[in-house]
Amino acid sequence: MMKLGRLNHIGVATPSIADSVGYYREVMGATQITEPFDMPEQGVKVCFVDTPTDSGMNGTQIELIEPLGEGSTIRGFLEKNPLGGQHHLCYEVPDIDEARAWFEGLGKRILGPTRIGAHGTPIFFLHPKDMMGQLTEIMETPRGSDSH
Amino acid sequence: MMKLGRLNHIGVATPSIADSVGYYREVMGATQITEPFDMPEQGVKVCFVDTPTDSGMNGTQIELIEPLGEGSTIRGFLEKNPLGGQHHLCYEVPDIDEARAWFEGLGKRILGPTRIGAHGTPIFFLHPKDMMGQLTEIMETPRGSDSH
Repeated sequence: MMKLGRLNHIGVATPSIADSVGYYREVMGATQITEPFDMPEQGVKVCFVDTPTDSGMNGTQIELIEPLGEGSTIRGFLEKNPLGGQHHLCYEVPDIDEARAWFEGLGKRILGPTRIGAHGTPIFFLHPKDMMGQLTEIMETPRGSDSH
Repeated sequence: MMKLGRLNHIGVATPSIADSVGYYREVMGATQITEPFDMPEQGVKVCFVDTPTDSGMNGTQIELIEPLGEGSTIRGFLEKNPLGGQHHLCYEVPDIDEARAWFEGLGKRILGPTRIGAHGTPIFFLHPKDMMGQLTEIMETPRGSDSH
């Protein structure tokens, strides 16, 4: 039986990471935002906004994602939502293969193979139509404490 | 200058809280979900799914919201997204009046008066068109440790 894991990040699509970084810094008062980097195999440019908790800047992150290249999977989302907006939710699991088997066993559609995600650990995505409208990413918890 | 606060919860609209609670328990493995309650002045029925962190079940929550009554503000969202989906992001602030003045000073449209939210503290919502596509709730941090 799957056990709900840490809410690692909320994926937020944007037409411009530069604009979103400015928005998070100047409007929302973010102080820690990672440098953007390209993930060409997923067709996105990515960076993370850190959020605080009682114990540090280790809260659920905002993952900003901008389309990269023509085949980007988020172009369709941005056509419907030109300003950007909430795109997916990402939960951690201790073992990605066990998690994949769990969702497969429930008949949930998995979008493509397990691959390496923006945090450097294996991830996969589940179809929003099987997840009550929520595009859901499952990621293996990074080892060590540099995960968040 | 506003400083980014704790990501209190992610609002997820659903046509049925009962179905969503079943989904979060049986598919996602949630173990702590609060009893649903009505917020008639906001036209929603609400409950919270707790998520874990390294130190307990004190992570960013999932707020499930189901329409209540004819005038519910989330009916339009569910017409466009019949299965439900991510609806808003909620950040904590230490002082709701200061936060309201901050966003007003930036010319951001605030949706209605400051009112009491689902956690019993004052909240307001900001227009997604002024917030890079993200319907954003600002809530005053609850006093004491029963906030999360």
